[in-house]
Amino acid sequence: MAVIGKSARRIEGLEKITGAARYTEDLRLPGMLHARLLLSPHPRARVAAVGAEAARAVPGVAAVVTAAELARLGAGARGLLAGAITRYAGEPVAVVLAATEQAAADGLEALRGASRFEALPAVMTIDEAMRPDAPLVRESTEVEEGDAQAHATVAVQTQRAERPSNIANRVTFSRGNAGEALAQARVVVRRTYATSRIHQGYLEPHATVATTDPGTGELTIYTATQGTFYVRNEVASALGLSQQQVRVVPMTVGGGFGGKILLFQPLAGALTRLVGRPVRLVLTRADDFAATEPGPASRIELELGAEASGALLTLRARIIFDAGCEPGAPLSIASLMLGGYYKFPNLEIEAVEVLTNKPKTGAYRAPGVPQATFAIESAMSELAGLLGEDPIAYRLRFAAAPGDPQPHGRPWPKMGLRQVLEALDRHPLRRRPKGPDEGIGVAIGGWPGGLESASACVRANTDGTFQVVMGAVDITGTATTMALIAAEVLGVPPERVRVITADTHQAPYAGMSGGSKITYTVGSAVRLAAEDARRQILAIAASHLEARTEDLEIVEGTVRVKGSPTVTLPVAEIAAMSMRFGAKYPPVFGQGNTVITRQSPGFAGHLVRVRVDRETGAVHLLEYAIAQDVGFAINPAAVQGQMLGGVAQGIGWGLFERMAYDESGSLLTATLSDYALPRAPHVPRVDTIMVEVPSDDGPFGAKGVGEPPVIPAAAAIANAVADAVGARVTDLPITPERVLAALGAAAD
Amino acid sequence: MAVIGKSARRIEGLEKITGAARYTEDLRLPGMLHARLLLSPHPRARVAAVGAEAARAVPGVAAVVTAAELARLGAGARGLLAGAITRYAGEPVAVVLAATEQAAADGLEALRGASRFEALPAVMTIDEAMRPDAPLVRESTEVEEGDAQAHATVAVQTQRAERPSNIANRVTFSRGNAGEALAQARVVVRRTYATSRIHQGYLEPHATVATTDPGTGELTIYTATQGTFYVRNEVASALGLSQQQVRVVPMTVGGGFGGKILLFQPLAGALTRLVGRPVRLVLTRADDFAATEPGPASRIELELGAEASGALLTLRARIIFDAGCEPGAPLSIASLMLGGYYKFPNLEIEAVEVLTNKPKTGAYRAPGVPQATFAIESAMSELAGLLGEDPIAYRLRFAAAPGDPQPHGRPWPKMGLRQVLEALDRHPLRRRPKGPDEGIGVAIGGWPGGLESASACVRANTDGTFQVVMGAVDITGTATTMALIAAEVLGVPPERVRVITADTHQAPYAGMSGGSKITYTVGSAVRLAAEDARRQILAIAASHLEARTEDLEIVEGTVRVKGSPTVTLPVAEIAAMSMRFGAKYPPVFGQGNTVITRQSPGFAGHLVRVRVDRETGAVHLLEYAIAQDVGFAINPAAVQGQMLGGVAQGIGWGLFERMAYDESGSLLTATLSDYALPRAPHVPRVDTIMVEVPSDDGPFGAKGVGEPPVIPAAAAIANAVADAVGARVTDLPITPERVLAALGAAAD
Repeated sequence: MAVIGKSARRIEGLEKITGAARYTEDLRLPGMLHARLLLSPHPRARVAAVGAEAARAVPGVAAVVTAAELARLGAGARGLLAGAITRYAGEPVAVVLAATEQAAADGLEALRGASRFEALPAVMTIDEAMRPDAPLVRESTEVEEGDAQAHATVAVQTQRAERPSNIANRVTFSRGNAGEALAQARVVVRRTYATSRIHQGYLEPHATVATTDPGTGELTIYTATQGTFYVRNEVASALGLSQQQVRVVPMTVGGGFGGKILLFQPLAGALTRLVGRPVRLVLTRADDFAATEPGPASRIELELGAEASGALLTLRARIIFDAGCEPGAPLSIASLMLGGYYKFPNLEIEAVEVLTNKPKTGAYRAPGVPQATFAIESAMSELAGLLGEDPIAYRLRFAAAPGDPQPHGRPWPKMGLRQVLEALDRHPLRRRPKGPDEGIGVAIGGWPGGLESASACVRANTDGTFQVVMGAVDITGTATTMALIAAEVLGVPPERVRVITADTHQAPYAGMSGGSKITYTVGSAVRLAAEDARRQILAIAASHLEARTEDLEIVEGTVRVKGSPTVTLPVAEIAAMSMRFGAKYPPVFGQGNTVITRQSPGFAGHLVRVRVDRETGAVHLLEYAIAQDVGFAINPAAVQGQMLGGVAQGIGWGLFERMAYDESGSLLTATLSDYALPRAPHVPRVDTIMVEVPSDDGPFGAKGVGEPPVIPAAAAIANAVADAVGARVTDLPITPERVLAALGAAAD
Repeated sequence: MAVIGKSARRIEGLEKITGAARYTEDLRLPGMLHARLLLSPHPRARVAAVGAEAARAVPGVAAVVTAAELARLGAGARGLLAGAITRYAGEPVAVVLAATEQAAADGLEALRGASRFEALPAVMTIDEAMRPDAPLVRESTEVEEGDAQAHATVAVQTQRAERPSNIANRVTFSRGNAGEALAQARVVVRRTYATSRIHQGYLEPHATVATTDPGTGELTIYTATQGTFYVRNEVASALGLSQQQVRVVPMTVGGGFGGKILLFQPLAGALTRLVGRPVRLVLTRADDFAATEPGPASRIELELGAEASGALLTLRARIIFDAGCEPGAPLSIASLMLGGYYKFPNLEIEAVEVLTNKPKTGAYRAPGVPQATFAIESAMSELAGLLGEDPIAYRLRFAAAPGDPQPHGRPWPKMGLRQVLEALDRHPLRRRPKGPDEGIGVAIGGWPGGLESASACVRANTDGTFQVVMGAVDITGTATTMALIAAEVLGVPPERVRVITADTHQAPYAGMSGGSKITYTVGSAVRLAAEDARRQILAIAASHLEARTEDLEIVEGTVRVKGSPTVTLPVAEIAAMSMRFGAKYPPVFGQGNTVITRQSPGFAGHLVRVRVDRETGAVHLLEYAIAQDVGFAINPAAVQGQMLGGVAQGIGWGLFERMAYDESGSLLTATLSDYALPRAPHVPRVDTIMVEVPSDDGPFGAKGVGEPPVIPAAAAIANAVADAVGARVTDLPITPERVLAALGAAAD
């Protein structure tokens, strides 16, 4: 391989670190109006009055829009703002549109002052919500396939409630008889784990600029989204437009992590259609915390049973997701991973989602799986400890292998779980002597791998450079990966390949950048398209040089006859011959249409050494290692970046992050000072070990690497804390208070 | 055929006639500067002083740029403004950049007042230029293939001058011995014809907005051009950039006719790179007349000889083009048509281009051919008259047929010249009695047909609509034609097909919209791409319906099993199955890469009845008919529009248009009141007769239709005038003065 497999700098890196990258909020269109949202101050309230007149009196305010105005655009637009009753604190109720940002802020203040809400009884916790007399969060039983669910491409039928209920959906999986097996088990771990509602923590708040063409009625949406086609389809559907009338232009995404898929684009589109001027809707940080879709909190009741020999007997678990005000939590994928990592002869898993008066939850890196993994991997280490077994050796003994059934009965495909555990086993961190109050924790985590059809084009320019045209948004450096793939296939230096993420009017189809699937799926399409272009180049060269294509090769942008180094033809000349007046050859324009129907699961294993301060309860991370099966690292630097970023975010899950609400249902953590993201001093040096069990389907053996590294962190840290001081914390984040409480419990 | 062959409305028609269409000049970018050009007041002058300081003192003026500043961007940028010596009145010497249009105008006034030019001896006519002691217009002998030449895809080697000379290039063609044959001829026509310099007369002046990305240095050019890739390549080359760093965004073109290919885009690009802010360069009407590239004037010395029997013996001709200050006049194509329409046993043609101190000439609808045709078709009618033959019957007797050699020896391909003449022969206008001083004129004209490779994509949306993505700019309704082609192939109503002309970053390759080749070449690519998409749709349907693809058809957007009308599957569902999470099929995304290497020449024949006012010399057009071989009319309304527009522009050539210069070399006709375009009362009712001799290569038999209809008009009118009053006018336009002079000469 001339190009791939070597670390390459991210193409857009310089632009981003110098601040030159243009984000949606930098866009200015002539006549543009700035939007500010009036949010519901209560988790459940009757909207008694919207003080639109007061806001309209503010100089510069052009319009105040409520659900009633939006209804003029059709039924689909009605739900974009709250109606008579709000469902969460933070739900948008009205929009102020003004000529300047300041006027919009002033207008919003006037609007807020003149509006009245009557608080109604609300349900804020899953326990409140499940009470038979609890107020209903919603009246419908409709279930849309959630973004989060779709990420993992798992096809499982959910059982929706028969009549409106705060318990919206349920999935169950079983094998053998988990209850009987538990009764027979000699060693049992029985715990209830809890994880917090977690915000995706991207740097750039949600941002959309929408404009409508007065002549054609066409809508253009500039937006920081992970999925342009998805946004296009949803906007078209909400506003009753043809997909041809909606153009979604991808903008630089300032952090996504699943949180930048679809949110305010239909509202922005509706607003510009209503007022006939461009509309810029950029959330403030506080509004972003209050009104977007974080990952769901969970409660997982888990029982794990083994024979005295250590043989794993059974798993029984109940997963409850706090979905917020709309269903769509990742029940299936959480269940499949919870029960899928190990060979359980008996298992029984029930997962339900419960509605509460909080914002709907959405996708966050490996939706549902950090929660499930925190439970199962805490329990596995605890079980190994009870059995006196080494936690890695014990896992290796029962780790699922290709062909073993997953909870839904389908077999695991080719995967590298065993190889990841073996890599962890070999790691020197394992054998390093532990100081006082130090412990080592291990955990693994897996992601089944997303699937989606994709197309891509690779086009030559007549100066010998190339354009990759695709529809996939680059959120993690995938454009660089695509350039490397195309360069490798074409035999040109990677700097000659430019990658364009086209808008939805012009792009070949690609699914959203999420679920660890862009390299796997779009990368395959790019590889095919580049191979197509290469064939075309060689065919022209063969005709021109009077050689056979089999005898030709492309080296550094020049076609040459193997063995005759003087007979050469630059790719630039070939391209020029194919694109000009009176050309004899068709343009060099390669295309790839792909569908991969087999998943390539990705596994990561974490190893962490911690020291626990018994006085304060503080957990200090001393040393970290992650081994991950990446299939094949096309751009090792980018893969390593995913591993490091995953670990950092996983540390956030483990030690710091939670969205906290006060008793009245108001968000307490609505700023970046209150919402505790991990910072540089919290992340130790991380040793990254890439295990390469090549995928049979991904390009050059690559598989998805984005999701897996975040998954095991919280469990690994919890296991390390337990190893260090014998205190098991079962609630995330592992705060000093909880460590002290667990120490107290352990001492009792 | 369900869709094509029936007249369809132009997709963008409503937008244009309601004024909603957005043109380049409507664009406003934040921080944008408005540019105004300081033009040379003399045809040849030394630039003694540029009063930049005076202009910079005007409030709002941000910069004054001369060739010296541009030189900082590299050698390629230096030539974008005049250096020490100007070469024509109207040559841009400096640019004022200001925050508003008014400030730019004020700045220009100050600049003009403070700048000094010293007039130098200039050559304004071809006679002056050819004098041995004439000042040289340029020092170089380099020849670039001109836009105009390239239009017709004729590959002829020109002989460039060995040392700098005002006679820049020469081509010659010969067969047999023209001189000897002339000596033997019994009937000879010997004339010198002259045609004027003609402006393309588009409504929208040249307009470009250029902007540079401070982060990446990437240049974006929004411009009304007929050829985005051509502009991209030339801008990149002028500014020393990779083609990947230049994005050309096609804007609505307010009339092109060959005049909107490449002109001020490199300058606008250089300016924005220099000042780091967006630059808007929109010419005033006067500047557009003074500084753009019109069609060249010509002088054609022609001798035609026949035997007493009427048998055509020989043609001898010398074509002189007044190229303006740079070579690039359409020598070859003019020669090939001049000597190609008829079977001459002997011919000798020499064509030269002569440089003068006027703006460089460029392409104008059928470059060079109206000039050549005016000569040969005037002479053919005169010869027929001398022989007492009917002008159509005589032409039919000697009309070139497929297989006959053209002047360069290569055979004519399949074409419909004979069928066009036969259609004219049958037309009732021929047999209508003529009133006093009325005459009927006939002329034919042909265009070899352009060739260029092309790609296109046809992509399904999941609501059952489709996107055609191409790189070709729509200047004549071709987007509508592409929608019809795709709809026909796909089996969907045409309103479900949206055609996108993508920018050069994203588009499949297409050549410039000129030379009558977009339907022929890009249309073929669209047809292939639609066929590809159709195959993909049927393959999915076959798999889903468990049928064989041969048994399936698509009717009105639904796939059905032939003979089983109840077994159906909407195309929307098929598309949705191919583009979603976990899809089983690759996206429906069709691609077409084509090259056609055989030309399909197009011929038109005009028939016109005129009345000549012997007192005033005025020529009144009473009745007009045009027959044209269009191959196959995919959208008859669009084809008819081309025919009508061609006739109208041909009437301009024949009766009105010329760019006139005063003795000092200043343009006299720099406004639309002075430059006499034909107006509605000047154009009579035109009967359009479409002859369909299908092309073996174009989509559904279509061939190029844009160029041919303008070609014969001037000759047909001149022949009608001669038929009416016996006066032959050999200089265009046929003004009343010239008619009176010819009447006087005829009376002598």
